[in-house]
Amino acid sequence: MPTYKAPVDDALFLLNDVFNYERYGNLPGFADATPDVVKAILEEGGKFAEEVLQPLNQIGDRQGCKRGDDGAVTTPEGFKEAYGQMAEAGWIGLIASPDYGGQGLPYTLGVILNEFISSANMAFGMYPGLSNGAYVALDKHGSDDQKALYLPRLASGKWSGTMNLTEPHCGTDLGLIRTKAVPQGDGSYKITGTKIFISAGEHDLTENIVHLVLARIEGAEEGVKGISLFVVPKFLPDGEGNPGDRNAVECGSLEEKMGIHGNATCVMNYDGATGWLVGEAHKGLRAMFTMMNEARLGVGIQGLAQSEVAYQNAAEYARDRLQGRALTGEAAPDKPADPIIVHPDVRRMLMNQKAFNEAARALVIWSALKADVTRGSHDEAEKQAAEDHMGLLTPVIKGVLTDTGFMNAVAAQQIYGGHGYIAEHGMEQFVRDARIAQIYEGANGIQALDLVGRKLPRDGGRAMMAFFKEVTDFVGEHGEDEAMKPYVEPLGKAAKDLERATMWFMANAMAKPDNAGAGSTDYMHLFGLVALAYMWAMIAKTAQGKLAAGEGDKEWLEAKLVTGRYFMQRILPETGAHVRRIEAGADTMMALPAEAF
Amino acid sequence: MPTYKAPVDDALFLLNDVFNYERYGNLPGFADATPDVVKAILEEGGKFAEEVLQPLNQIGDRQGCKRGDDGAVTTPEGFKEAYGQMAEAGWIGLIASPDYGGQGLPYTLGVILNEFISSANMAFGMYPGLSNGAYVALDKHGSDDQKALYLPRLASGKWSGTMNLTEPHCGTDLGLIRTKAVPQGDGSYKITGTKIFISAGEHDLTENIVHLVLARIEGAEEGVKGISLFVVPKFLPDGEGNPGDRNAVECGSLEEKMGIHGNATCVMNYDGATGWLVGEAHKGLRAMFTMMNEARLGVGIQGLAQSEVAYQNAAEYARDRLQGRALTGEAAPDKPADPIIVHPDVRRMLMNQKAFNEAARALVIWSALKADVTRGSHDEAEKQAAEDHMGLLTPVIKGVLTDTGFMNAVAAQQIYGGHGYIAEHGMEQFVRDARIAQIYEGANGIQALDLVGRKLPRDGGRAMMAFFKEVTDFVGEHGEDEAMKPYVEPLGKAAKDLERATMWFMANAMAKPDNAGAGSTDYMHLFGLVALAYMWAMIAKTAQGKLAAGEGDKEWLEAKLVTGRYFMQRILPETGAHVRRIEAGADTMMALPAEAF
Repeated sequence: MPTYKAPVDDALFLLNDVFNYERYGNLPGFADATPDVVKAILEEGGKFAEEVLQPLNQIGDRQGCKRGDDGAVTTPEGFKEAYGQMAEAGWIGLIASPDYGGQGLPYTLGVILNEFISSANMAFGMYPGLSNGAYVALDKHGSDDQKALYLPRLASGKWSGTMNLTEPHCGTDLGLIRTKAVPQGDGSYKITGTKIFISAGEHDLTENIVHLVLARIEGAEEGVKGISLFVVPKFLPDGEGNPGDRNAVECGSLEEKMGIHGNATCVMNYDGATGWLVGEAHKGLRAMFTMMNEARLGVGIQGLAQSEVAYQNAAEYARDRLQGRALTGEAAPDKPADPIIVHPDVRRMLMNQKAFNEAARALVIWSALKADVTRGSHDEAEKQAAEDHMGLLTPVIKGVLTDTGFMNAVAAQQIYGGHGYIAEHGMEQFVRDARIAQIYEGANGIQALDLVGRKLPRDGGRAMMAFFKEVTDFVGEHGEDEAMKPYVEPLGKAAKDLERATMWFMANAMAKPDNAGAGSTDYMHLFGLVALAYMWAMIAKTAQGKLAAGEGDKEWLEAKLVTGRYFMQRILPETGAHVRRIEAGADTMMALPAEAF
Repeated sequence: MPTYKAPVDDALFLLNDVFNYERYGNLPGFADATPDVVKAILEEGGKFAEEVLQPLNQIGDRQGCKRGDDGAVTTPEGFKEAYGQMAEAGWIGLIASPDYGGQGLPYTLGVILNEFISSANMAFGMYPGLSNGAYVALDKHGSDDQKALYLPRLASGKWSGTMNLTEPHCGTDLGLIRTKAVPQGDGSYKITGTKIFISAGEHDLTENIVHLVLARIEGAEEGVKGISLFVVPKFLPDGEGNPGDRNAVECGSLEEKMGIHGNATCVMNYDGATGWLVGEAHKGLRAMFTMMNEARLGVGIQGLAQSEVAYQNAAEYARDRLQGRALTGEAAPDKPADPIIVHPDVRRMLMNQKAFNEAARALVIWSALKADVTRGSHDEAEKQAAEDHMGLLTPVIKGVLTDTGFMNAVAAQQIYGGHGYIAEHGMEQFVRDARIAQIYEGANGIQALDLVGRKLPRDGGRAMMAFFKEVTDFVGEHGEDEAMKPYVEPLGKAAKDLERATMWFMANAMAKPDNAGAGSTDYMHLFGLVALAYMWAMIAKTAQGKLAAGEGDKEWLEAKLVTGRYFMQRILPETGAHVRRIEAGADTMMALPAEAF
């Protein structure tokens, strides 16, 4: 049976020491989140993830969700009770506004908690995760009446939310949406169509489900400009806001999937269901997009989360499993064989995971703090910079953390040898669960294209230039510091690779956009490597500072320094191969006719 | 529903044109295998894989194998009939000796057929695959009586075989084996112990199952030097060689696995089962190792096979699925969207797969021909060179083809977007099935260590020097040929990277063996890239020759040239990153104490 221990200490180190969390004290929610409060929240949240959610992870995978003949869906054993506890303890409304019964804490804390929950039970975490998405969309675009009705119920966890975008013939290309909305003259619409891949579309955890649905108002123009957003509750709220009549929407079937079996992935049939417009007509896609950064950050976190929990179990196994002898001679002569952690190739996999996880967590928290700025700052310049950061880094975080997170889960499974392929050890579940994060919320190829085609050139490259400046300034500032050289020299070199690739696009992709498309995934990963290396450089600086001051746990801080050097030596060199691939351009890639494949 | 088309044309091109198969005419079996015969066999074999085995692949995955209370195991619907047809048509004994009722055809043909079968239905293919392994072991090490009894029955497919190595506490480290063999004074032994992960350990396809079991004769010395090999039939053969009394061996349970559900992976309990020694006492491990090269080649083929079938389906999907518009403008203006094969990032994934599959197939066939030489040549120098080749290339083929094959299956699944995560499309099954090939028959980390620690230094580096010489000679010979420059220049550069890494090991790993372990996986992949690049250079040379001579299908040959260039530009640059990682050595990898993970 796999285990999990929430990395609370690492999160606190990042918040307090590396990113100096207290300097955001002027933002809403931060004043209440004193270091003691933050520590208590993360410890409690970690305990909830470890003790309540993690033990349900394998059960959820084995049992999956069941759909009855009436279209009702039952979640796995224990999910309902765990959800109840979660709502009761206020975790669901942790970052929701106090105006709607939430606790009003910083978004960043929600993000950290999200990692813990996703590590413990990714399928479970999607239920409250989607409610949070619906909350944000309605908070941003809903009318006052809609907010008053839905937000308190979503924040308390009494109701849950969903996002309905995909249809059988359209996923990425939402301009092809066919679901129809017919105005009824009373402000409501009748919604008709079929949506697929709807996570948490139907279940038994809450008394009502709030569907947010993209549809085309009858007569609207074709393509993305004719799409509107609607709120369609499973039960129509009565005058008091209690669930009333059943709406004409139901789960037609459950998808049989590779993983996240504990989450109900539904085909949803809307058969003249009653819905109400959210925000302006024909601007539904834009409304959806405003919450996309945070949703994509959430999926990136799932990649990190699976990597982390798989790593923890692999490390434990590597310390326990006796097999073979160290290349340097017997390490445990009193035992029939040495623990496999003595073998360099096992170490390689563990170090790859550790070096990634710790930097990825930093990248997530760094970006979450920027998201808090976009949410609450009144300083326009600071806000714009934070928005630029989020726009630029979000596709990187989503794409890189899920691709690498998946590969790390695969490597962690590998450490188990044959036992990793057997279900009872739980390692193969991490791999299967992690796999979806590369696909949904915009497949990673789309993230790469979003980065290269939109985020990079936007506003004359302002966001990218700011990122470069920050990294280059750091390199300049610490370049002469001997102790920092093992970090800043490779970082500087990698940043040069990124710059070179960026220049190459400028010179070669304007006239020939396929050159941008051909290099987009490599560019996304190159960017990710530079961002992660920057995180390690900052972590190293902080760790050195604390060690010099005699603060903190010496061994723990020294492990940070070693792990960061490992990242620079072993993971970062990949930037060179990315550049060479990018500079190869699109020619051989696009040369063959479609029939030649 | 996924489909499959056996790449018969590609195999014939490689056999006839690239490797000039007819020059092996002096080897046993080759004289009968005229080009017409080879073509007919591959076409028939391909049809069998496509029409009989492939339709059972998803059924096998869904139904899995079932164990009854009596320990009997039922294979999925249709497996028994397909197996009967396979045996009937003589496919199982294709390469077995005519002395034992086989067809005596070259091993290479068996290898090619193996790819087709593994693509069509990997779980099914393991049943005859294991029989072939048992055949080889008994042929090489069995007594005349054992051969007379078992070989004809294995070759006909009436009986099947298994390999019993792993125990709960030992996989890689077979020195820890506890299964006991007690001599009975009549030449037989009583075998007692538990074996796990036994593929095809129990099933309903054959009237008898021949278990080859590693065990320790009572009183034998500890470690690998006390291990012997035994043959333990499920039913004890009577005087006529028919299945008689039930032996004391049974399937205790079936493992619940990530994939290959159609194959029965058993825990086998030996409870004083009657068995007979195969070969010499205490030399069991050596007996097992003699068939290891071919077994590992077979697993490498599984990696290629899953990559190939996943690729074929992804290409079909990419031609059909309409989503978005080409970056260069509408490609199919009459349709609501363009087929996704217009998008460079989709192409990138397809080209990665295609460029790998075609070179990997060449590498497999090239090596299979060497295996035929080791099996049948009477020229000692040629035979030794072929054995050197097999020793050196086998871990590379096993490790690289399964690692890359798995990643390609993942990328093919990615092309399907959300649909790739849904079971009915079959793409996620390819990923789950492919995953095991990285683990069994020696986990890939073990392959890497075998390569670096044993195969590389063996005989003063003779095998490696021969490989270098062959590649360098080819580069020298064609370096001035303008048309060949796009192939030989990158190949020469990559070979230099390999040489540099080899030198680094020589200088740094003797005194500090962890440096070899730390770089072993990178070295294996670096080696694989050079070998695959060499295949592409040979293929390009052949294609250019045929084009110049006006022979063959022009478009097909030109596609080879493009695909080879793609490989050189986009895949081969990874060698540089491998070298840098290798040269980083073991320091940061081994620095942390075990508790720091």
